[in-house]
Amino acid sequence: MHPKLLKGNLLLFFLVVMGWAGPVFAQTPLTVHMVTTTEDSLLIRRLADTILTDGRAYENLRLLTKTVGARLSGSAGYYKAEKWGQRVLGEANADKVWMQECMVPHWVRGGKDSASWTAGSGLGKTTVGLDVLALGNSQGTGMGSGAGSGAGMGSRASSGSGAGTGSGSGTGGGAGSGGIRAPVVLINTFDELEQRKNELKGKIVFYNYPFNPLFVETFQAYGDAVRYRGMGASRAAKYGAIGVLVRSMSSSVTNFPHTGALLYNDSFPKIPAFAVGLRDADRLAGRLKANPEGVSVFMRSGAHMLPDTPAHNVVGELKGTEFPDQYITVGGHLDSWDPAEGAQDDGAGCVQSIEVLRALKAIGYRPRHTIRVVLFANEENGGRGGRKYAEAAKEAGEKHLLGLESDNGGFTPRAFTLSLPDDKLAAIQSWVALLKPYGVYEFERGGGGSDVNPMSRELGATVGELRPDSQRYFEYHHARNDVLENVNKRELELGAVNMAALVYLVDKYGL
Amino acid sequence: MHPKLLKGNLLLFFLVVMGWAGPVFAQTPLTVHMVTTTEDSLLIRRLADTILTDGRAYENLRLLTKTVGARLSGSAGYYKAEKWGQRVLGEANADKVWMQECMVPHWVRGGKDSASWTAGSGLGKTTVGLDVLALGNSQGTGMGSGAGSGAGMGSRASSGSGAGTGSGSGTGGGAGSGGIRAPVVLINTFDELEQRKNELKGKIVFYNYPFNPLFVETFQAYGDAVRYRGMGASRAAKYGAIGVLVRSMSSSVTNFPHTGALLYNDSFPKIPAFAVGLRDADRLAGRLKANPEGVSVFMRSGAHMLPDTPAHNVVGELKGTEFPDQYITVGGHLDSWDPAEGAQDDGAGCVQSIEVLRALKAIGYRPRHTIRVVLFANEENGGRGGRKYAEAAKEAGEKHLLGLESDNGGFTPRAFTLSLPDDKLAAIQSWVALLKPYGVYEFERGGGGSDVNPMSRELGATVGELRPDSQRYFEYHHARNDVLENVNKRELELGAVNMAALVYLVDKYGL
Repeated sequence: MHPKLLKGNLLLFFLVVMGWAGPVFAQTPLTVHMVTTTEDSLLIRRLADTILTDGRAYENLRLLTKTVGARLSGSAGYYKAEKWGQRVLGEANADKVWMQECMVPHWVRGGKDSASWTAGSGLGKTTVGLDVLALGNSQGTGMGSGAGSGAGMGSRASSGSGAGTGSGSGTGGGAGSGGIRAPVVLINTFDELEQRKNELKGKIVFYNYPFNPLFVETFQAYGDAVRYRGMGASRAAKYGAIGVLVRSMSSSVTNFPHTGALLYNDSFPKIPAFAVGLRDADRLAGRLKANPEGVSVFMRSGAHMLPDTPAHNVVGELKGTEFPDQYITVGGHLDSWDPAEGAQDDGAGCVQSIEVLRALKAIGYRPRHTIRVVLFANEENGGRGGRKYAEAAKEAGEKHLLGLESDNGGFTPRAFTLSLPDDKLAAIQSWVALLKPYGVYEFERGGGGSDVNPMSRELGATVGELRPDSQRYFEYHHARNDVLENVNKRELELGAVNMAALVYLVDKYGL
Repeated sequence: MHPKLLKGNLLLFFLVVMGWAGPVFAQTPLTVHMVTTTEDSLLIRRLADTILTDGRAYENLRLLTKTVGARLSGSAGYYKAEKWGQRVLGEANADKVWMQECMVPHWVRGGKDSASWTAGSGLGKTTVGLDVLALGNSQGTGMGSGAGSGAGMGSRASSGSGAGTGSGSGTGGGAGSGGIRAPVVLINTFDELEQRKNELKGKIVFYNYPFNPLFVETFQAYGDAVRYRGMGASRAAKYGAIGVLVRSMSSSVTNFPHTGALLYNDSFPKIPAFAVGLRDADRLAGRLKANPEGVSVFMRSGAHMLPDTPAHNVVGELKGTEFPDQYITVGGHLDSWDPAEGAQDDGAGCVQSIEVLRALKAIGYRPRHTIRVVLFANEENGGRGGRKYAEAAKEAGEKHLLGLESDNGGFTPRAFTLSLPDDKLAAIQSWVALLKPYGVYEFERGGGGSDVNPMSRELGATVGELRPDSQRYFEYHHARNDVLENVNKRELELGAVNMAALVYLVDKYGL
């Protein structure tokens, strides 16, 4: 999960990241029926039964993670994933499957990024490697002659071969063709950055802002910390820094670096920026706190942007019997970061959404409204797929009841957010009792994820998202360990059960 | 987690396993104060802050799992664990730490158990290995001369060296000194066993009863299936079978076998009994369904019982200021099965309980009642520690307000069960709002775990347990993968936060 970053201004970026850019609340009249029936309970039980016993969610996820793997926008993996999506939506018995084209940014890592720090001199000189990942959309240092294309990529789904020789990419301020080295300055907060702005020229800034464990809901800790990843590079470049290291946004006990997109401010040099694993960050910070002098950091990265390239949202639908031109959309995003399988982020949301369609069809339910599953393109570093879907729907004059997203991992379900005013939320409280046996015990007022929120803005649709338990999400988010083995089959399936049940209830009773 | 199995009759065994043997509901008058205060909310926040930022739960668990490891009753590991418990309770600033002795069963695996199945003959003969674990308290086949003591133990905490030569243990019906081989009969249910009782003489019975995925609460699936582990051996031995394989009680996609205790019926021969990994069980069942003829199974195990041996509950306490002779007990069990680190079962419950004490002390809270942390002995294959604690308290005439247990894994918290009548449960509903920010959103009427339930029976105490999310528990339960790496630090800590908060509320308002 990551808010769209390209285009748009910084304010919008942070509002979205921090959950403050709520969608427009739907203004349609209150038409919800409060009285659910035993029939509803039995139908939801049938949905649960097919998902928990004959479900395809986990096997589909296995295919996506193990036969497609990483699938960043523009990479060969992404196009392979599109084919996977078409096939599994067909197997789920969608009435119709199609592709919706949009142009997406094409960022490439360009070889294995590397970094280290060095302290002391002479015989006392020590160099310590850092486990790093260049931030998405960042400009690297260049890889130096001969390096790059021959360096084994960490990602199995690297984009075009030959990318990463890096000879044309050394545009970062002060970046040499074979990496950069400079003294490092430990900066804990943006306030400290401002106070020490005169010390940063020619330096590498190391942001060590913590992922605050006091936020029980980990997305709040993420929203609090992610500004250092998103804006840290340009804010440091403004004062002459030539590179940044950013402590990973994670609560993990492990050392995996967690990448994710940054957003350059075009007014300043585009300097290289790396996420650093937590244990490595602790060690470097410890050294700098004890003695801030005499430590230099080396950074090397072949990261660079290529021209925008076409990609597709993959869409499958069940035609409505009564209101075929009114839509309920459920989806996740098909792209992932390049170093991982994108199992939790967001393979889980994709296979859960497909499972909603499969289960409804499998039990013979004939929806009143048309139900669409959308596997969105380019959530991670552009948000183009979500915007395209809403804009196209607006152009076509479509009426959308609900855009429901799953992009918080396939963990055990707890809640749904819905962009409904309080009176409408209150009116559907009786639905909670139908979901509770499967894990969701409350509806919260809130927006959807970044792929369905454009449906609120463009279409006035109600949007929402599955809110599974958040404790483990930032163990895996944008890191190498976001793999199938860290998804629990039953947690994944129960998310799908609750999504299918909510889609059914909205289809039957409206919103 | 496992109900006590030794002593007591089969009916009680199943009532306890399946959660039907509810404790006697406390009959004390309704004295609970319903009105909680802002002070409560702030104090609970302080408990959460210290647990989430300065907590010792995870590090204590790391020490327990990585420096002690497996700790089955009677093993060297258990005595090492007792020392760990004394030390960490001291470090948590308990006012007093002591050991409470009880005699415990001493079962040993006696070397690495092994099994395989063979089909066909001549050139078409194939033999397929099975990943198995002898069931706890079971009698093995004997290991054959020369084997056993030299075979590398799967467990790092094997009990006395030299155990497992197996020469004296070949008392199972039909067991040869170096293992047994016999035709195998696939049995899906006890009903089928009864129907086919005349076919079982001299055979090995393979129980393939599934862990039913339709139970959303996985402990219900466990309660449904565990009778095949608990009673399957004796029910098959009654009809002349010489060994049993039991499909593991697990929902996992992996093949780890899940051990656990069985209970022999003394009227029938004590035949060897193994848990089989799910994928191996699927493959064997597939072969037998396609063609039930011509398949034999080989089983070898050095498992046997040694004489009872002394062990200890480890107890730490904070002395109450107003009612020092009235107690609130919180605990988990210190023993674990031998093939694993016992991280979720029940290292988690131990370190959470210790953390309750540490956090209360760390924020300077002076409890009104005496708060005891008990690390119970021998939950897995005897339940002696829990019974001892309640019996000793009864002898001493102690008054106990609450016995609270954590033995369902250190997963994200959802609920507490409490053995309170509905009116009393209703009276403390306001507490739920104080816990909800940390994950617990409901109190359910129900018993405690098997270590605190004796406090209900013996002392009339209210008992209860933490009910974390159950989806992952049977991935790890009694299996080799119950290791620290499968415990999430924050989930573990949040369980401790809710436990500390409940202990505080009971201390302040009574029950």
